[in-house]
Amino acid sequence: MKEFFRVVDLEEARALAGRFPVVATERVPLAGALGRVLAGDLVAAADLPGFRRATVDGFAVHAASTFGASDSAPAMLCVVGSVEMGVCAGIEVAPGQAARIPTGGMVPPGADAVVMVEHAEEIDPTTIEITRAVAPGQHVIEPSEDGRRGERLLEQGTRLRPQEVGLLAALGVREVEVRARPVVAVLSTGDEVVPVEATPGPGEVRDVNSHTLSALVARAGGIPRPLGIVRDEFGALLLACRAALAGADVVLLSGGSSVGARDLTTEVLAALPDGRVLLHGIAMKPGKPTILADVGGKAFFGLPGHVVSAMVVFHALVRPCIDRIAGRRPGPATRIPARLSRNVASAHGVREFLRVRLEERDDGLFAVPVPGKSGLLRTMVEADGLVEIARDVEGLDAGAEVQVELL
Amino acid sequence: MKEFFRVVDLEEARALAGRFPVVATERVPLAGALGRVLAGDLVAAADLPGFRRATVDGFAVHAASTFGASDSAPAMLCVVGSVEMGVCAGIEVAPGQAARIPTGGMVPPGADAVVMVEHAEEIDPTTIEITRAVAPGQHVIEPSEDGRRGERLLEQGTRLRPQEVGLLAALGVREVEVRARPVVAVLSTGDEVVPVEATPGPGEVRDVNSHTLSALVARAGGIPRPLGIVRDEFGALLLACRAALAGADVVLLSGGSSVGARDLTTEVLAALPDGRVLLHGIAMKPGKPTILADVGGKAFFGLPGHVVSAMVVFHALVRPCIDRIAGRRPGPATRIPARLSRNVASAHGVREFLRVRLEERDDGLFAVPVPGKSGLLRTMVEADGLVEIARDVEGLDAGAEVQVELL
Repeated sequence: MKEFFRVVDLEEARALAGRFPVVATERVPLAGALGRVLAGDLVAAADLPGFRRATVDGFAVHAASTFGASDSAPAMLCVVGSVEMGVCAGIEVAPGQAARIPTGGMVPPGADAVVMVEHAEEIDPTTIEITRAVAPGQHVIEPSEDGRRGERLLEQGTRLRPQEVGLLAALGVREVEVRARPVVAVLSTGDEVVPVEATPGPGEVRDVNSHTLSALVARAGGIPRPLGIVRDEFGALLLACRAALAGADVVLLSGGSSVGARDLTTEVLAALPDGRVLLHGIAMKPGKPTILADVGGKAFFGLPGHVVSAMVVFHALVRPCIDRIAGRRPGPATRIPARLSRNVASAHGVREFLRVRLEERDDGLFAVPVPGKSGLLRTMVEADGLVEIARDVEGLDAGAEVQVELL
Repeated sequence: MKEFFRVVDLEEARALAGRFPVVATERVPLAGALGRVLAGDLVAAADLPGFRRATVDGFAVHAASTFGASDSAPAMLCVVGSVEMGVCAGIEVAPGQAARIPTGGMVPPGADAVVMVEHAEEIDPTTIEITRAVAPGQHVIEPSEDGRRGERLLEQGTRLRPQEVGLLAALGVREVEVRARPVVAVLSTGDEVVPVEATPGPGEVRDVNSHTLSALVARAGGIPRPLGIVRDEFGALLLACRAALAGADVVLLSGGSSVGARDLTTEVLAALPDGRVLLHGIAMKPGKPTILADVGGKAFFGLPGHVVSAMVVFHALVRPCIDRIAGRRPGPATRIPARLSRNVASAHGVREFLRVRLEERDDGLFAVPVPGKSGLLRTMVEADGLVEIARDVEGLDAGAEVQVELL
């Protein structure tokens, strides 16, 4: 059965690629949690920091005892002791009294603020003059100010940065439940493709796509499974695709840019009992000859053979799909606004992706289109990012505000 | 000997932290090259792609044979054969002739352009009508267009992205000479600090800094060596610092925010025969109580005990230092311009770092200051980035253009 040939907009492609199920969860030690996606909400099991803590070196006091204090009219306080680090403050501070305290020390009962050491002068070992008033709560962290027991501190789907790892440490979490890293099988096809270690004969090229796509997968938080090169032949391709699907959450098959190769991919997908082609071509440039199929709930991408096109489709479509099945919540916008350095033409009805360098000039940040033919890998190497030009725009003028997605 | 107490500007601190020697090189397989820093220039050992290649499906032709062709006046060409993928094109194309060619195929001798299949109509098996002219070189990549033998394609110090990995693959590089990842020892001090697995007693807190700093090191491309918690005691600290220095390129000692702890760190540094304190305090907020020393050519950072301050100093000072000793060339600006959502006060004479969330509003991207005391970890968790406020600015108005460095 020949599949329906369906060319769609990039928006529709993104919606179709966003419907695959989220991967399972696993537990990892805290030291391996960086960059992972939290499987459930994180609820504080105890108050943080758990006690009233000084944030400066100085004297723990009743704030009220300092009110009105100044250089000309200092408040005189009686020093009743010193707080040691890491132990319960065994002193009580009454109005008119003060206790020496180091940064991070436990504010003793009775005190509700800390006067910085710079604003206190020692008259004798038991008397100080305070030259600046403090407000209640000043220079202290309250017992539950960094997190209240039972409070939700992190939402499921959060990608853990160093500060989230720190928060887990503060709560005593030694193992954390995260989403598994999606496994992404990477296959190259093409009778002209030879392994990196081979010397290409006439008409042959090395397998650039496997290496580039595997690196993109790793950077997107997935586990790349490079499966090598398959010949452009129905039986071999069917076998390789079955094996790839058996061991992965996502399959990236690249190389079928020619009509013949694309037809072969479609035939293979039709031969898989639970395969369904969702789209066959995207109105984008580069990247048009892209196939997306659902094979038993797994995402199967047929990517263009040109490495540049395959990379652009990865950025525009595959990475959001990996984020989605990794259970990741969308983060903040991370594209960089810049102004276009020159006029750029664009085909109407097609979303174009422009490769640009970022250039800091006297009058701001500019996106400078990288010269060279679209199929050249060097254009990606010379580029800092991609600019997406909307479908119904016929071009952009020099100076136009654009958003640069870093490559 | 008591060390000289030296508070410096952040610029001077950065200059001092930028003088440590670059680490040695090592060879890694291509599959492990992502994110690594290239040790030498990459020079093309051969032309890329090595032969004239079609970038579309169509017909290889003499461009001149199509000049003037249009729908109403098509050019008639004689089809002399088909190019197979991955083999030497065994045909010659003379003027007036054409050869079928798939995307990626080798353009046969004689031909200098490819006509897209959409612009050719087959009259009979050996005759086509071309309805659109092509220019010489159109829809082909020339033999050395992606890289000429002997050309420098990548500069030393380049941090390898997926496209650079792809370029290495294209050139047949199976192992690449890169800079070693800097080893960064991470030590926590403080008698109040207990390991993550312990339940803190009164006045105690878990070791947040080791985990946060190790994660920051890993993200910066270094190898973190967490060495645990040392007591605030001269002998123990000296021993721990000696051990840390012996096995690392950089040492991060955090926890000494109180005057007593900082004095102890300075004493330990003075006791190391080849130790020299470069700065003792930075005019920044948070992050003032920072120490930087050169110990036998290795960078030794004494970071504030507050995790937030330690993180800010890491972003402002430690990461650039790691980049430098990793041999990395500075990349393009990756800070995100946004407008400040409200007025912000700032102390004159001190560089302040503001934690902000990014918020996309109808009238653009806004940086919204995160509320809460400076010492709270939750302010870092709620923040998307940092805004650096210049030293001599007393505050910024709502709507001011700021640069957000993502956290």
